[in-house]
Amino acid sequence: MASSYGYPFEQQHCLSISQFSRPDIETLLSLGEHYLNLDVQKSPDNAVLTGKTLVNLFFENSTRTQKSFEIAGRRLGADVINMSVAQSSVKKGETLLDTAATLNAMNPDILVVRHSASGAPALLAQKLSGSVVNAGDGMHEHPTQALLDALTLRRHFGKDLGGIRIAICGDITHSRVARSDIQLLNILGCEVRLIGPPTLIPADADRWGVEVFHDMETGLDGCDAVMMLRLQLERMSGAFVPSKREYFHFYGLDRSKLAFAKPSAVVMHPGPMNRGVEISSDIADDPEVSLITAQVESGVAIRMGILHALSEAQDGIS
Amino acid sequence: MASSYGYPFEQQHCLSISQFSRPDIETLLSLGEHYLNLDVQKSPDNAVLTGKTLVNLFFENSTRTQKSFEIAGRRLGADVINMSVAQSSVKKGETLLDTAATLNAMNPDILVVRHSASGAPALLAQKLSGSVVNAGDGMHEHPTQALLDALTLRRHFGKDLGGIRIAICGDITHSRVARSDIQLLNILGCEVRLIGPPTLIPADADRWGVEVFHDMETGLDGCDAVMMLRLQLERMSGAFVPSKREYFHFYGLDRSKLAFAKPSAVVMHPGPMNRGVEISSDIADDPEVSLITAQVESGVAIRMGILHALSEAQDGIS
Amino acid sequence: MASSYGYPFEQQHCLSISQFSRPDIETLLSLGEHYLNLDVQKSPDNAVLTGKTLVNLFFENSTRTQKSFEIAGRRLGADVINMSVAQSSVKKGETLLDTAATLNAMNPDILVVRHSASGAPALLAQKLSGSVVNAGDGMHEHPTQALLDALTLRRHFGKDLGGIRIAICGDITHSRVARSDIQLLNILGCEVRLIGPPTLIPADADRWGVEVFHDMETGLDGCDAVMMLRLQLERMSGAFVPSKREYFHFYGLDRSKLAFAKPSAVVMHPGPMNRGVEISSDIADDPEVSLITAQVESGVAIRMGILHALSEAQDGIS
Repeated sequence: MASSYGYPFEQQHCLSISQFSRPDIETLLSLGEHYLNLDVQKSPDNAVLTGKTLVNLFFENSTRTQKSFEIAGRRLGADVINMSVAQSSVKKGETLLDTAATLNAMNPDILVVRHSASGAPALLAQKLSGSVVNAGDGMHEHPTQALLDALTLRRHFGKDLGGIRIAICGDITHSRVARSDIQLLNILGCEVRLIGPPTLIPADADRWGVEVFHDMETGLDGCDAVMMLRLQLERMSGAFVPSKREYFHFYGLDRSKLAFAKPSAVVMHPGPMNRGVEISSDIADDPEVSLITAQVESGVAIRMGILHALSEAQDGIS
Repeated sequence: MASSYGYPFEQQHCLSISQFSRPDIETLLSLGEHYLNLDVQKSPDNAVLTGKTLVNLFFENSTRTQKSFEIAGRRLGADVINMSVAQSSVKKGETLLDTAATLNAMNPDILVVRHSASGAPALLAQKLSGSVVNAGDGMHEHPTQALLDALTLRRHFGKDLGGIRIAICGDITHSRVARSDIQLLNILGCEVRLIGPPTLIPADADRWGVEVFHDMETGLDGCDAVMMLRLQLERMSGAFVPSKREYFHFYGLDRSKLAFAKPSAVVMHPGPMNRGVEISSDIADDPEVSLITAQVESGVAIRMGILHALSEAQDGIS
Repeated sequence: MASSYGYPFEQQHCLSISQFSRPDIETLLSLGEHYLNLDVQKSPDNAVLTGKTLVNLFFENSTRTQKSFEIAGRRLGADVINMSVAQSSVKKGETLLDTAATLNAMNPDILVVRHSASGAPALLAQKLSGSVVNAGDGMHEHPTQALLDALTLRRHFGKDLGGIRIAICGDITHSRVARSDIQLLNILGCEVRLIGPPTLIPADADRWGVEVFHDMETGLDGCDAVMMLRLQLERMSGAFVPSKREYFHFYGLDRSKLAFAKPSAVVMHPGPMNRGVEISSDIADDPEVSLITAQVESGVAIRMGILHALSEAQDGIS
């Protein structure tokens, strides 16, 4: 049977950007674009997951991402079961395998999982018969965030992102969003730069196909887009950063620093924002430069696209 | 297209009692009466919200109210998404606007919101494209509670509540229920009295179209109905009230104080009750005088009515 | 109208094993076996609860059991409402009755309830018009766990469990699972043994139709199956058990102790396991001896069977 989107998407899981070919990514972005249309989202004709069960298993709190997957699954007709598990009860790898056995008994067609341990979704994928979607694992990857970022960029710059210069700024070391974004933007032919203090950029980052900068003025020069990362509260004082105030002075995005980028540059942030720490409110809320609202809009759409593609691959429609 | 209930209900939101005309309120109460019938509630013919998404966003804990809206929405065929957000993550107005942007991206048809800040639902209503229902905001209003109270009174006293004398007793100052009830009962032509210690009744309450009393004996004289308010735990000692015991002595409703009202007087309480603090158990559980169970029954019905009316107004059926 | 399973099942509730006749239990186990088939579970033809509302009310945390009932209810077409209530808000019997009034107003067809107080589900059953399923109450009973254990045993030993020798090991005193299992296994004709330290076996246990042992070597002799119980954290030190280490030495199941049972003996555990406390990982994870994964698989199936039977009894199909 022919796929509904042309290219034979044959991935069973969505665990990391590195697993996808360029055509896989084009397929997912095309499906995401399709579902950006609200009338399409809400049409009962799109219930391609009818009769399927999606388990939304979050070991870390994230109302935003969990609800985004819940809405995406429901709009596609799936039965969605939310499970929020306190971190404390799953400290050991052994117990994660017990969880996998419990989940297998529930026999979900798709498991969406967020976990503080890098590799937890991949481990579950080995033990479960259904598809696994990584909704963020430790400091490893957050592939659906990267795909929604790429979808957002395409809405602004058009389908071909080749040659677009993008700076990712802030705490690269601890960011799974950055790891997924870097890989995906490289695949799409962007020129990727990292900007941050030496304490927050890994020593081997120059081997990731990026250029590394430690000051905003040089790093932002000629950039088409600036992706700010969230500074986790626990890094805001002490070993990594002298203080919130000093961090904002050197790396927080405000009008004066944005002026180092191209005049047409746009700004992104995966949310939730620390206003006044990594980004100023006047930048975040300026519809002329901020794509942040468009990113949120892209979230439900790209997740519908990913679920759609995995479901068709399960059914052998590819 | 003709409305299913005659009068052209054209309100986009349900934020406060003050926004409604007398005919609006009659429409909502008529729809509530319609849905009191369990066979009507459970009939698939009533799925007037099919294909619509209701987001049930609670920044304060309230299992009772949240579940009441969830059941109401589901019985009308809506897709219901529950979101419980810890207070801590939304301390600033700015962040509430970020939440609004996230919600807009989910594109709910109806947002039900409870928040500790007065005016939060109204702020969200400005930023969202769908309808907003206030499920309680700070010390401001709780309009759906007032409507269910009025529905309960009509089940007991008949459609015309004109001239009925009703006392609202207890902590008026901090009660959003009282603020909504007072307005609604005034619109319906009731004679409203407030009874409580001077520390718990606002100084300007006499300008609200009510009579103020500080003792139960005088206040309850000739009353047809007595609405007791919940005394919040944090007011039970210290600045507002000397002690639970002394509060019950002066303002807790028991047989001896109820005897000051009409022999036929009925008793109401919005729940959850502090038995032995503001009301004694023998009063609360006496089916001859207590309408408390009827109030809970009215909750799902009136919320179905409100959701029904807002949905038809959205669709231009009015 | 004829029942879909032959025998006239006429129970309104599922509160304890003691309420069921042998034919009732055969009916429930047969329905459970029917729903073990995943294709049957997921077929829309099985939506025998369509139009019915199941409220899943948990006063104690249990993701596993609550989700098992949620999935069972949804696969049968019910509308499932999850309510998790913090223990603190329901300390008094009076307040449980207020909860019952609230629930009645929501008019659920089936209420699944877990509560820390023995007898709470029975109390709610008196006050509600729908069916009540006990999902664990205090130290009293956990009948659906016992039924899933019996279903698991039948998958391994065949339909006739008469004469099978089974040891239940560990903290019998505080275990509602043990209380339900003992009754059910006795009804099915098994030979039941209890093994544990004197501090964790009630003094009158010998009147329950079981043999009591205080050492594993004698107790496990000739056993066909060994059911290990979870040792609650709060019992692990102090009055009941000297230390985790010493408990494992005397009563933890490892290869050397399992060798006291029959060579063909199988091992069960209701989960979640304390690996290294009551059971070693090599036993728990050995597919040759462990039925633990099969127990989890039986959970959704037996709960579908129980909900199915109660629903048909409600509709007078029996």
